Amino acid sequence: MAATPAELSNAIAELLEAAGKDRPTLGLVPTMGALHQGHAALAQAARAENDVVVASIFVNPLQFDDPADLARYPRTLEADLDLLGAAGVDVVFAPTEETMYPGGLPLVRVSSGSLGTRFEGASRPRHFDGVLTVVAKLLHCAQPAVPAEYRAYFGQKDAQQVALIRRMVADLNFPVQIRPVPIVRAADGLAESSRNVFLSPEDRLNALVLSAALRQLRDRAEAGRPLDLPAAVGLITAQAGVELDYLQVVDPLTLDPVPAGPEDTLTGPALALAAARVGGIRLIDNMELQA
Amino acid sequence: MAATPAELSNAIAELLEAAGKDRPTLGLVPTMGALHQGHAALAQAARAENDVVVASIFVNPLQFDDPADLARYPRTLEADLDLLGAAGVDVVFAPTEETMYPGGLPLVRVSSGSLGTRFEGASRPRHFDGVLTVVAKLLHCAQPAVPAEYRAYFGQKDAQQVALIRRMVADLNFPVQIRPVPIVRAADGLAESSRNVFLSPEDRLNALVLSAALRQLRDRAEAGRPLDLPAAVGLITAQAGVELDYLQVVDPLTLDPVPAGPEDTLTGPALALAAARVGGIRLIDNMELQA
Repeated sequence: MAATPAELSNAIAELLEAAGKDRPTLGLVPTMGALHQGHAALAQAARAENDVVVASIFVNPLQFDDPADLARYPRTLEADLDLLGAAGVDVVFAPTEETMYPGGLPLVRVSSGSLGTRFEGASRPRHFDGVLTVVAKLLHCAQPAVPAEYRAYFGQKDAQQVALIRRMVADLNFPVQIRPVPIVRAADGLAESSRNVFLSPEDRLNALVLSAALRQLRDRAEAGRPLDLPAAVGLITAQAGVELDYLQVVDPLTLDPVPAGPEDTLTGPALALAAARVGGIRLIDNMELQA
Repeated sequence: MAATPAELSNAIAELLEAAGKDRPTLGLVPTMGALHQGHAALAQAARAENDVVVASIFVNPLQFDDPADLARYPRTLEADLDLLGAAGVDVVFAPTEETMYPGGLPLVRVSSGSLGTRFEGASRPRHFDGVLTVVAKLLHCAQPAVPAEYRAYFGQKDAQQVALIRRMVADLNFPVQIRPVPIVRAADGLAESSRNVFLSPEDRLNALVLSAALRQLRDRAEAGRPLDLPAAVGLITAQAGVELDYLQVVDPLTLDPVPAGPEDTLTGPALALAAARVGGIRLIDNMELQA
């Protein structure tokens, strides 16, 4: 385990050199801990594709607008280290808040612009600025100091986060490749999330309407039928115990809405994004739609 | 000359390897062209301290709030290349606007926060966000892909810019060291600036009151006497043809004001910052004050 950027940098350089290749590969898996099967899939994807794999565990205060949400965020370090070890991660970077933000929160930050104020950003002001700022820091902390291909892995579950991180890397020329990893779902269809542990059995059953509505859109897209977004919205709003925040069909890169009415068939790849409150817990989910 | 990030990265890797050292040093000198003796000093400092020296020339539209100011910014590529060549620069990175901002201006940017809205930022909204965004891009474009000590050189003339870039590098963990280079002054005391060519001979004479007021503060600080900032302000406001924007004594890192009244002596290092309009041209200057 590495606790400081210098320790991490040295550990990475040693491991890359030990790989004994001209141009070894390095995979970074940034997490906030409370790891579940979705994170295991990230670590496994990184392990399968790289000579050296680093994961980070840091609950980033900068991306929580609600102090209560930050305080109750699950912290399960021992179990997290076991999961990452089992997935074959070489080094875990687990810095303290003081190490990441010496002297308090940063003055200079990354700004997510208009892509960060809609969907998840609409109800969580500055959330994505906090995400991008800590991801920029982590990308720099794990930046290989010896020749290497550098990749970073993020879960497609947070589709807007993935879109924003890709945009940040392109807009600011970060020397890294971003690799999104598909959502991992439980057998009942619920997307894996650190927040699922807060759902009662009844909430969990109610929550399944989210993935059902997304599947309806995906199946209609694949069949070349009109998407009929209002019908999918109706499916969710009819479900007791579920309060819909948004269900939208958007462009995967820009997150601009795509026509998805009762007459609109898809003309290219799109993304269906959903968010709802179930028993007081906010859940998000998404599916890729193919024309 | 390199025109794309890939060309630049390859050229840097080749030069660093040709240095034949375990850990060679790389110096980056970002500029907007229109080079003068101040820039030559940057390139010379980088040359004296590094195995490989890269300079960039890019007039960054993102940091100009006034399109007229951007349009009239001097562009002198041939002379710039001569100056950089004479200073011993190894590679010049001169990208087009389309290369730096493909598909238009970036959505994700670096935000300068409260340090970017005062002094120069007060009259030029978003200026420092534009500066930090392009510097982040350039630092990534020149990031060595082989083992190297990486340094970037900036002129102390733009004291607030230096403070902000240092803060960005610390806050976002950029793997680079920032090296400020002292102001170069003409024989008459005027700080070198790309804008000086716009001054009439009379304007230029009037403009000397700026450095004179800063010298007054510096001499008082060195002598252990009260700074008497109002007296230095009075010196400038009494000068015909000069419209003072600000003259302030601040902490070098935070740019927070330091007590500098007729009774206040300095207790630590400080910075005196000045800006004024002379014949319609905005000039800035500064001096370090030592207790």
